[in-house]
Amino acid sequence: MTKYYEDLEVGDTFETSGYTVTKAEIIDFAEQFDPQPFHVDEEAARDSMFGELVASGLHTLCLSVRLFVTEIVDGEVDIANMGGLGMDDLRWHEPVRPGDTLRVRVEVVDKTPSSSRSDRGYVDFRRSVVTDSDEEVLSILSHNIVRRADAAV
Amino acid sequence: MTKYYEDLEVGDTFETSGYTVTKAEIIDFAEQFDPQPFHVDEEAARDSMFGELVASGLHTLCLSVRLFVTEIVDGEVDIANMGGLGMDDLRWHEPVRPGDTLRVRVEVVDKTPSSSRSDRGYVDFRRSVVTDSDEEVLSILSHNIVRRADAAV
Repeated sequence: MTKYYEDLEVGDTFETSGYTVTKAEIIDFAEQFDPQPFHVDEEAARDSMFGELVASGLHTLCLSVRLFVTEIVDGEVDIANMGGLGMDDLRWHEPVRPGDTLRVRVEVVDKTPSSSRSDRGYVDFRRSVVTDSDEEVLSILSHNIVRRADAAV
Repeated sequence: MTKYYEDLEVGDTFETSGYTVTKAEIIDFAEQFDPQPFHVDEEAARDSMFGELVASGLHTLCLSVRLFVTEIVDGEVDIANMGGLGMDDLRWHEPVRPGDTLRVRVEVVDKTPSSSRSDRGYVDFRRSVVTDSDEEVLSILSHNIVRRADAAV
């Protein structure tokens, strides 16, 4: 059963399964999108403020979106997401290291009907990425556009 | 000449070259990190609010970070970036389509010395992603940690 704008309530929470990130994919992602020495070069990373190779924060964000989309938006929860407007309050609390297992916790924190478009509403999701030792590594507020049930064909 | 915390001034601006995004890489990225129908399936995209296949906003963000890192942070400007704290005010103003050429404009909008660590300061960069017709597609404020010159070995 698809969840439309009307079906989501402030306080609803969802959680994904865990995904374990490898050193090879940390380096591969960073070489493509964020090739700073502490994300691609173990030797250079030892001299960085991290002291070791760590995932690009952008990589952590991308992995969290994949979990959110595949397991929540287009997964078991099935949210009628039409698109995203933006994000706020992105904070990287701790670095992500090779072998870390990440899960995403999602909470509906606000919803507002569109005043100009009767087919949609705006839903804010607070997303928190945690390791298997329950350490929060990333938190973010995302602003999404969700279709209304009465606008669905 | 590396630019340290002391060398960056509020109002400094930098701009990258352009990068043209292809349909194949839009789909490839989205299949990895944001596999929603309007980012991976041209047929389904026609029925979406976009009316056609568009890049994941996360993809636009990743491409903008690559341009920022390769051409500014570790490029000609050469900023002594130690890492990122987070981002705010991310807004996707317009969708990015196959064939769009993206450039990134960066402005230093704030700087604050660390009160607890003498080797660093905090620098806020406003980054704007524009197409070749000068349409802004993404804007974001990033919070970075930059090494001080007197802390460099």
